[in-house]
Amino acid sequence: MAARSVRKKPARKKPARKKPARKKPARKKPARKKPAGGKSARKKSAHADADDQARKQRDISVSEFFAKNRHLLGFDNPSKALLTTVKEGVDNSLDACEEAGILPDIRVEIEQQDESRFRVAIQDNGPGIVRAQVPRIFGRLLYGSKFHRLRQSRGQQGIGISAAGMYGLLTTGRPVKITTRTGRGREAHHFQLIIDTQKNEPRVSVDRVVKWPVQHGTRVEIELEGNYRGGQHSVDSYLRQISLANPHARIVYQPPSAPPEKGNGKARPPEEIEFPRVAKQLPPLTAEIKPHPYGVELGVLMQMFRDTKARNLRTCLQGDFARVSARIAEEICKTAEVPSSRRPRDVRRGEAERVHKAIQKTKIMSPPSDCIAPIGEDLILRALKAEVEADFYASVTRRPAVYRGNPFLVEAGLAYGGNLGLEQPITLFRYANRVPLQYQQSACAVTKAVIGTDWRSYQLQQPRGALPVGPALVMVHIASVWVPFTSESKEAIAHYPEIVKEIRLALQECGRRVATHIRKGKREADEAKKRAYIEKYIPQVAVGLEHILGLNERQRDKVVKNLTNVLEKSRKL
Amino acid sequence: MAARSVRKKPARKKPARKKPARKKPARKKPARKKPAGGKSARKKSAHADADDQARKQRDISVSEFFAKNRHLLGFDNPSKALLTTVKEGVDNSLDACEEAGILPDIRVEIEQQDESRFRVAIQDNGPGIVRAQVPRIFGRLLYGSKFHRLRQSRGQQGIGISAAGMYGLLTTGRPVKITTRTGRGREAHHFQLIIDTQKNEPRVSVDRVVKWPVQHGTRVEIELEGNYRGGQHSVDSYLRQISLANPHARIVYQPPSAPPEKGNGKARPPEEIEFPRVAKQLPPLTAEIKPHPYGVELGVLMQMFRDTKARNLRTCLQGDFARVSARIAEEICKTAEVPSSRRPRDVRRGEAERVHKAIQKTKIMSPPSDCIAPIGEDLILRALKAEVEADFYASVTRRPAVYRGNPFLVEAGLAYGGNLGLEQPITLFRYANRVPLQYQQSACAVTKAVIGTDWRSYQLQQPRGALPVGPALVMVHIASVWVPFTSESKEAIAHYPEIVKEIRLALQECGRRVATHIRKGKREADEAKKRAYIEKYIPQVAVGLEHILGLNERQRDKVVKNLTNVLEKSRKL
Repeated sequence: MAARSVRKKPARKKPARKKPARKKPARKKPARKKPAGGKSARKKSAHADADDQARKQRDISVSEFFAKNRHLLGFDNPSKALLTTVKEGVDNSLDACEEAGILPDIRVEIEQQDESRFRVAIQDNGPGIVRAQVPRIFGRLLYGSKFHRLRQSRGQQGIGISAAGMYGLLTTGRPVKITTRTGRGREAHHFQLIIDTQKNEPRVSVDRVVKWPVQHGTRVEIELEGNYRGGQHSVDSYLRQISLANPHARIVYQPPSAPPEKGNGKARPPEEIEFPRVAKQLPPLTAEIKPHPYGVELGVLMQMFRDTKARNLRTCLQGDFARVSARIAEEICKTAEVPSSRRPRDVRRGEAERVHKAIQKTKIMSPPSDCIAPIGEDLILRALKAEVEADFYASVTRRPAVYRGNPFLVEAGLAYGGNLGLEQPITLFRYANRVPLQYQQSACAVTKAVIGTDWRSYQLQQPRGALPVGPALVMVHIASVWVPFTSESKEAIAHYPEIVKEIRLALQECGRRVATHIRKGKREADEAKKRAYIEKYIPQVAVGLEHILGLNERQRDKVVKNLTNVLEKSRKL
Repeated sequence: MAARSVRKKPARKKPARKKPARKKPARKKPARKKPAGGKSARKKSAHADADDQARKQRDISVSEFFAKNRHLLGFDNPSKALLTTVKEGVDNSLDACEEAGILPDIRVEIEQQDESRFRVAIQDNGPGIVRAQVPRIFGRLLYGSKFHRLRQSRGQQGIGISAAGMYGLLTTGRPVKITTRTGRGREAHHFQLIIDTQKNEPRVSVDRVVKWPVQHGTRVEIELEGNYRGGQHSVDSYLRQISLANPHARIVYQPPSAPPEKGNGKARPPEEIEFPRVAKQLPPLTAEIKPHPYGVELGVLMQMFRDTKARNLRTCLQGDFARVSARIAEEICKTAEVPSSRRPRDVRRGEAERVHKAIQKTKIMSPPSDCIAPIGEDLILRALKAEVEADFYASVTRRPAVYRGNPFLVEAGLAYGGNLGLEQPITLFRYANRVPLQYQQSACAVTKAVIGTDWRSYQLQQPRGALPVGPALVMVHIASVWVPFTSESKEAIAHYPEIVKEIRLALQECGRRVATHIRKGKREADEAKKRAYIEKYIPQVAVGLEHILGLNERQRDKVVKNLTNVLEKSRKL
């Protein structure tokens, strides 16, 4: 058949063009020695039978995977890469400081080295990193302390900062530089390392003790291909937003100077920008929680039975889950008809299925909510006031709720009027665990909830299916032990109905308050207008009366005075 | 300060509520022995200093990562999970058959076991899998043969089928079952295995030789929590679409019966659905290509110099890249001022930078395009005709183009009229490397290109910023050695301008053809109307003439005949 010969042609041509292809047949020889069953031996040209295919199977290291799919991590293009690098560094610094109970003091420096190359440095006053951990934290993807726990933190995956270092390495070939010190009595260490993407392992080139004036803290430097630009997705805007949601942090930012022109020497760097500390207290330290039994799936339950350290089923249920008391554990076992004294690893499949079903039938309290640290209504107000000059501010912190077994909490803040833009859609700031989300606004549950709220009943204009229009800034914060992001780059929150509902309730509360303010403003404006109108005509009325009743000047002035008094009084009522 | 005591309170309360927390202080003791520098020793309650934080650092296995983030792989909800499982199985079967030069014969079975549990089986006549590879292919994420090469295939990542098995395990606790045989003279093997998510390693529970009537092929069975439903995102719709883009494959599908009602025994399964083979030839076997030098980044180039087997810079450039001849390699070295005889691993940083810059300055041919296998205009037409009854069909296969150094090719097909819906938006089928994309239509470059085409100039209605409206089905296929998906679940294609442009050009070509057809149809309809009108009045004219000119009956009939003749003639012109 003609088509079959067409298929083979390109395969034959290839060796001529690509020399290395010639070497391959040598590797395929062993396959020919084996008695390849049946017809497949006959027509083996470029086709690969089971043996050929087996020989090509290989492990893919997670670094190779993300290096090739770097857009999944937020390194799609140079300007986003620069922002993502700053973001991962600052997130880590804030997490480390807070966990150690230190008020964060963070310095971000960006230096432009040539047209498309930047050096980013992030330095904090955190607890520092012990020497042995440095290489893996910065030179290995999927390594960290935050993945295996249910606790509110900015980082979740153990990918961020090492991915930034990897992107830097891929685009500039330069290592990540880390300086860290864990306390006054200890030595400061300086590292330079790269990630070996084929093995997902760090390769350290420099590891030495250095003098560092900092008492405790960490400094990370990454060189990368980037693009520095302004606007909504800029580093400046990100730092402003993160300072808004982290009023307990002080951030100093050194923006890049324009690249030095030839023969002109070095350009003077622009001035530092300081985002001051608005609040002197750290957010409450959140608790780590156990999974709630309602959220657990059968296969996961079976795995927990296999891996638990508990001696029997009752203590396993009680110890490895949130909200399971001894009484409830017994109740579950009874409903499932499995003895509560059974060793967990001896629980058979059928029994595990019965336990799984019994859990759904048993009434168990909602997960504890002190694992969530809201920003708080006060601090949101203070942060909003520091951010924009408006006429009116409102903030709401909702009570914790639960989605898929995970506790979460929604807060909203609203600033209205003042020097905010009039005829534009409102500005929307989205946050998850105090981290601003800057991309994929339209894909986010927050945007969905804002659009789904009827702002017209709160005195704002709103085109159908769009953000409301008016002089307002809205911020929404979602805090959770596990924020369901739509991608690894953590840019948008998935549309869980429970989450969308909570956001809407918070927005409605803000909406009601701003509506009262706007109505009051309108009423006052109306009255002022009326008053001005009447005031203007009082003298005319007096002159009219003067003519009609033949009043003298004194009488006329008295009439003016009386009328003005009446007006004042009625206004005061 | 009040705020500080607030922060500590929850930490103190916790141990009372969660007993296991009491055990932890024991693990923290070693930290107290060390002389913790300065004040940090004083106020250590629940806060974690560098030592505490170090102790919590752990590896995260890639399976744990994706188990927790399973929505990234297309397992967001039960109905999508069922579809994704079928899809990953069928994709693998098609890839394996084609690579072995076998016309695919695939059987998909879905059996509903209870309300929310399904057993999915996919069986193919592929080359089979050699015994030693089975555990890792099905029980390990990021393992496969397709990631480390630039070649067109459905699979890219080495995640899909093991992720489906992992989802099955998590939701039902059941192992994946695999039966495979590599040829007539060989034994068939049956495996049952699960993935150990903590280690990302397979755990085999059954591994035995079985009798299997199949000569060569593989059968995979996965039990999972799922939801079977119809509509655009259904398994049925997916299989119809994949058959459309793979006319060389025969697919037999056994849909699930309704779950048996109690006391009613087993329900009779519904009848099998067959998607027959439309074409008897396999798509051309595509070549594997080397990366094109224009696409390589500095860090990657440096890594290639480190890892290459080539003896000197010239042979490295020539052998490890596409389209680099000895002459071009010499030219690059000369521009970079690096001797072409330099051993690649001795190339220093500065030299590598110069080579990188020299590459951009050197004129190098576009990547070869025979690494792309289009479906072809003929087969698209035949597939469309098999799929829908329409009045008009068109198909276009564009010439290969390049984005970011990767060759790609766009094809489009269009069916118009017939029994296609009139007043609805057109139906859009999107494909990447012959795999239908069923989710995230609005996020996809294909949708963007369809909306961006001016369909009104092709006689179709089109609301602003939306899909055109009319009785049409449009299919678009993108084939590439590396399809840039927006997520691991491979649901939408990223908006590369080169790709959007090529799609638009293909659509415009189809549009022009359908416009000719629609205009011709309109013209013919107009003429038929006119003719009917004239025909109706010819006898009246004859009667009129009869009266006016006093014609006899024969003369009148002749007039009628003549007039009719004139009408016929003018229509034929």
